[in-house]
Amino acid sequence: MPDPAAILAVAIQEARLGLAEGGIPIGAAIFRADGTLLGSGHNRRVQHNDPSAHGETDAFRNAGRQRSYRDLIMVTTLAPCWYCSGLIRQFGFKTVIVGESRTFQGGIAWLKENGIAIQDLDNPECFQMMTGYIRQNPEVWNEDIGED
Amino acid sequence: MPDPAAILAVAIQEARLGLAEGGIPIGAAIFRADGTLLGSGHNRRVQHNDPSAHGETDAFRNAGRQRSYRDLIMVTTLAPCWYCSGLIRQFGFKTVIVGESRTFQGGIAWLKENGIAIQDLDNPECFQMMTGYIRQNPEVWNEDIGED
Repeated sequence: MPDPAAILAVAIQEARLGLAEGGIPIGAAIFRADGTLLGSGHNRRVQHNDPSAHGETDAFRNAGRQRSYRDLIMVTTLAPCWYCSGLIRQFGFKTVIVGESRTFQGGIAWLKENGIAIQDLDNPECFQMMTGYIRQNPEVWNEDIGED
Repeated sequence: MPDPAAILAVAIQEARLGLAEGGIPIGAAIFRADGTLLGSGHNRRVQHNDPSAHGETDAFRNAGRQRSYRDLIMVTTLAPCWYCSGLIRQFGFKTVIVGESRTFQGGIAWLKENGIAIQDLDNPECFQMMTGYIRQNPEVWNEDIGED
């Protein structure tokens, strides 16, 4: 298992990139247990007008086809929403590293109930990027999580 | 509410297209309550080497950004997996039309528990396309649903 803070740094880099592009600052990455990076990505709703590109789904896409996700690690700057939690459960990830879950809890309780190990690092930069973005762009954030 | 069989026909057309391309025959579409088609799509794992492109997520992407999904209808040839069920729940769809759920049940019981109306049309062509594909390509199907 790689150092959680070290792999979260890759997801944070993606979130910063998204923010610099004018997008929602959520990043994610997928690693092998030996620390090999398979793919990373970030939310691209604003940049690509693509509502399907959440941080986790973008990282999943960029990692390409994998025969099994059982021994892989998903790391994301924010607790995964139902969409991304469903991805984690369907594809059999067993380990998820979360940057923070204060601004949004998503499906982490449900993932734990289903036997998935969640490690929440409560990282201040993740929290600050999200709260700053939401304060300035509440309508984009609500759209991203399907809140009317 | 548009005629369920008529809107399922659009998803079936997408599934047939996917099959003709050599892919997994699952299609989906998103409609307004007045019958306007907003977007359709199909599984593109094989065609684009894209594990994130399930029928429902491809239709969701192609429909573009929407302010609300509450009054929209998701129609899919096969019961949505956890990934796609999570999408349906997160974005607040209230109505899902399913072509068949005999080969795969996915998250439909969970969606019903969460107040989402599911109408299962048990369509013979949907069932035949899936069973035929799975018989010939069991490893691709297992990869698509994260079965080791």
